[in-house]
Parts: sequence; structure tokens; C-alpha cells
Amino acid sequence: MSSSAVVHRAPVRKVAVFGGTHGNELAGIYLVKHWQAHGAEIQRPGVEVKPFLCNPRAVEKCTRYIDCDLNRVFDLGSLGTVVEDTPYEVRRAQEINRIFGPKGSDDAFDLIFDLHNTTSNMGCTLILENSRDDFAIQMSHYIKSYVFLLCILSMSYGMLLLIISLLCETGVEVGPQPQGVIRADILEKMRKIVKHGLDFVQLFNEGQEFPPCTIEAYKIMEKVDYPRNKNDEVIAIIHPKLQDQDWQPLNKGDPLFLTLDGEVIEYKGDSTFYPAFINEAAYYEKKHAFVKTVKVKLTAELLRSEIRTFKSC
Amino acid sequence: MSSSAVVHRAPVRKVAVFGGTHGNELAGIYLVKHWQAHGAEIQRPGVEVKPFLCNPRAVEKCTRYIDCDLNRVFDLGSLGTVVEDTPYEVRRAQEINRIFGPKGSDDAFDLIFDLHNTTSNMGCTLILENSRDDFAIQMSHYIKSYVFLLCILSMSYGMLLLIISLLCETGVEVGPQPQGVIRADILEKMRKIVKHGLDFVQLFNEGQEFPPCTIEAYKIMEKVDYPRNKNDEVIAIIHPKLQDQDWQPLNKGDPLFLTLDGEVIEYKGDSTFYPAFINEAAYYEKKHAFVKTVKVKLTAELLRSEIRTFKSC
Repeated sequence: MSSSAVVHRAPVRKVAVFGGTHGNELAGIYLVKHWQAHGAEIQRPGVEVKPFLCNPRAVEKCTRYIDCDLNRVFDLGSLGTVVEDTPYEVRRAQEINRIFGPKGSDDAFDLIFDLHNTTSNMGCTLILENSRDDFAIQMSHYIKSYVFLLCILSMSYGMLLLIISLLCETGVEVGPQPQGVIRADILEKMRKIVKHGLDFVQLFNEGQEFPPCTIEAYKIMEKVDYPRNKNDEVIAIIHPKLQDQDWQPLNKGDPLFLTLDGEVIEYKGDSTFYPAFINEAAYYEKKHAFVKTVKVKLTAELLRSEIRTFKSC
Repeated sequence: MSSSAVVHRAPVRKVAVFGGTHGNELAGIYLVKHWQAHGAEIQRPGVEVKPFLCNPRAVEKCTRYIDCDLNRVFDLGSLGTVVEDTPYEVRRAQEINRIFGPKGSDDAFDLIFDLHNTTSNMGCTLILENSRDDFAIQMSHYIKSYVFLLCILSMSYGMLLLIISLLCETGVEVGPQPQGVIRADILEKMRKIVKHGLDFVQLFNEGQEFPPCTIEAYKIMEKVDYPRNKNDEVIAIIHPKLQDQDWQPLNKGDPLFLTLDGEVIEYKGDSTFYPAFINEAAYYEKKHAFVKTVKVKLTAELLRSEIRTFKSC
């Protein structure tokens, strides 16, 4: 191996754990409320860990959002001035940006775990926004040694994660869980991801070296909509052979959709892809029946915190 | 056997198939929309079969209801006069009652299938409102010979079924399916129930005799709420050993709930019961974590339509 690069990063001092970015994804909401009352579990020496409910009005109504999707308004345009009819979630995004950011400021949080659920059979998934973030890749690699975990490399949509965080953005997505339901098994998986993520932060801060590593991830290439009629109504549903088969290879000729007349719509492309977010409830309105991903490898250099570097000077 | 009773009923002339009583339970909605465009599948000789979308505004928003639960306002009080601030669903209930009822009128529909989904792992369930309705029991017995099916005897809540129908009220409940999601496997099961229900109607109308029968059913005895704090927030979730165990016997000492501190809350009663609607998303606000049922036997007399009786006169 020719590389002997070492990445130094400042220790992580401020971590946020977000639940309720979507008000009907209950695992993060239950965990955040619990940790707001009983925080010992998520505290780590020398780190401020702040559990936070992002969209309390949507949580109260057990709905994804009130006016618009909070997780799509963290773009710089939306974070500008408030006018009278500014949607609730846009105002909330500005508030969150003030509390946890703004990006680049001295007070900004270093790391955010944003806790989500999906109705898709995706298991435990970390959503990364940057394929070259050594810290995020090292943390994912660490968590993967404790929890069976997939990593997905997302396209950005003006998501919360992208704007605020200085050091690392990590979406935590666990499913399958219906909207408005809390399942103990799903909650436990999410809890473990956060625990091991925070353990990693602690080890990093204490000066542990993390040797170069590679993780397998899935890169989102394209979003595929349902077949629709002129009125924009869905006219073919996820084929039963595709349902629940997130991350399984899909090849030419494999069934994608089924009409109510029994017509099967097949995948016609030549290249293999790995579907995810299959039949996610919240994505009907966004016109995604599933996303197409391809496998990629993400590599990280040796990582250590600046503390250790200073000590060795 | 001492009984030789024969129940004669008038032939079934008007059948309604309702979808979208709850706007986020998609299987019935997809089927009804399909049948409105392509009705041959549900037509039977000599019978008017009308597919109908009950709550179109809730369907459009993919939400259970707009102002209040349509399936709880079919009581005679709600069906009275309209005032300016009458909730949308109450006005809609009055409209439905006018179109398909009113109960006792010559024009009223004879039979309604009201199609629902649940997030609970209940499989295919028929909800009956009357333990002594020979027609409903015979029809359930018939459908059970084609589809693995459970019957549940419900307490009434001013449900749609109770008020309108003259002859028979049948709720069709299929799960598990998340709200806002359509699964092909769940849709197919629901479709089979309706098909065999309509086949039964046809055979009955044609004069087939259905010999006395007995079916096993589950009678709802009690609704059990989640443990809550003073602010009415849920503080313990369905225990993983209870999750998805609808219809399985629950005995003293079996776990019911789990707090986020790890405390297990057990069933303390002496008698065995059979839980259903475990962790149904829509029942958090209704304060039901599950319902307790007991097994009962429902028996029906020999059934034949009046046509045959007339012929043999």
C-alpha cells in the first residue's frame, strides 16, 4: 500500500441527536423524548450531546409534516428571510440552523445523527452525503462491526444534514416500520446505532487511531416513479417479487410493477442495480417507487484526532 | 341433532363494496378505483354491485380522515340535521346513508363489504357485528373454505356497517400493511375475500342450500391502552414478544409492554385471551394498544334464499 496519509480532525465537542424531523417516524421521537428526560445513556465525557425534537407540531399530529417536508428545506434559499406566509417547516429549519449551526460558525455542532424510519425493508441504513468524508466512513465502519448495517450514499435534496453539520452528517434510517407505529425491535436497532456512533466519538476524542478502511456502500443513481395515468394516479403497484427485496440485485427481465389487470412490468435495463426505499409510504407523493443504487467502495485514510497529534508534538 | 330449522332470506339484489372509509388504507381504495373502471370482475347475475369510495377527500390527502373518523359517526345522532360546522365526515356519513340506506327502506342495499387495512399482523379478518346473523356466518364459513380467514366479533362503535345494511354487515380487515402503502400480497388477499363473498351471494341467489355450520370467532371483550404519563404520552411500547402475535394465546405472566428503561409489564390476569389489533397505527389516538378477545363459536341454521322456497311451494 503506497498511502500513508493521516487525517487529523479536531475532537468532537458537540453532537446533536435529532428525532421527529418527520413527525410520524416514531423510533427517533421515542428515543429523543426518553433521552431528554434520562440523558445518561447518550452522554460521553467531554462531549455535549443534545437530543432534539425537530418538528414538534408534526410530532403532535403524528404526521410527516405540517406545511412542507422539513427535510427538504435546508437549502440556502429557504434559510433566508421570513415573510408572513413562510411555511411552518421553513421557519423551523431557520430555527434549527440558528441553534445547531450555522455551518462554519464557532458554535456550530460537529456531528448530527438524524433519526428516521422507513416502511421499506431496508434494515439499518446510514445515509452519508459525502463519499470522501473520512470521519463518516470510519464511524460507519466502526458501527458496522456491532450492528448489521448498510450505508447508502445519497443525492442531496436540501436535507437537514447537508447544511448544518461541520464535521459529519449521518442520517440513520431503520425499517420496516409503519408510519405512526413504534416497534420495539426497530427502536432497539436505532438505539444501538446511536450508542456505537457515540462510542466511536469517545474513542476518537480519546486519541484512538483508526487505520485505513474500506466500506461497501450503495450510491443512489436514479429515482423510479410508479406507472401513472393522466390524472397522476398510480396504475401499477410494486410487484410482490420486488416487495421487501431492498438491496437485492435486480437484473434485466425481473418484475418491477404489477397492474390490477395482472400485467407485469419488467426491468428492461442491462445493468444490475440494487433497489432501496421500495414502497416507502412517504415517497408516493414524491414520485419514487424505489431508488436505483449501485455498489461502490468508500475508503478512508488513517484517522486520529488532533489531541493525539498535539501530544506527540 | 334436534334442530331442523331453515332460515329463508330474500335474495341479495344490491351489494356495495366500500373502499377508502379510511383514506390511508390503500388496498380497498385501489380495488374500488379499479372496479369503478373495470367492473366485470365483481358483477354477478341479477345483482347490482356498486364499488364506492367513502371518503374521497381523505383519500386524496392519504390520511385516515379530515375532521373525524368516518367509521365512528354512523350513529343515529350524527345522522341527523346538518349545521354549518358539521364535520366533513358527518356530512359524508349522511350522504352515504342516503345513497345506500336508509336502513329499513326498500331501496337500501342488502350487503356491504367495507374494506380496511391494519398495521397489525392480523392476516385476513372478517368483522361481524351480530353473533346471530345466519347469512353472515354462512358467508364467512364459505369464504373460509377458500381463504385462510379469521372472524372477529366486534363491539359496535357507530360503525358504518351497523347502520346501513339490511341483511349483512361485513368489515374486511387485512394486514399487516403500513398506512399509505399498497402491498400486492395484501391487495390480492382482499380481492379474494370479495370474490368469494360475491360468489357466495350468487350461489345463495341461485337457490343453493347451505347446511347448518359452525365457525370459530374471536369476540372482543376489552380494549387495552398503552401505559401513559400525566401528559397522556405513551411510556411503554408493545413488547417485542407480543408484537405480531395477533390471535396467539396470552397467559398470565406473558409480557405486554416494555418501557424505554427496560421494565417489562406483564399480563396479570388469570384467564387466557387472544390479542388482536396489536400496535395498530390508528389506535394510538383511540388509546388501544390491542384488544382482548376470547374464542367463541358461531352457529348458523340451514340457509336458503326465498326463491327456492317459492319454487318448492
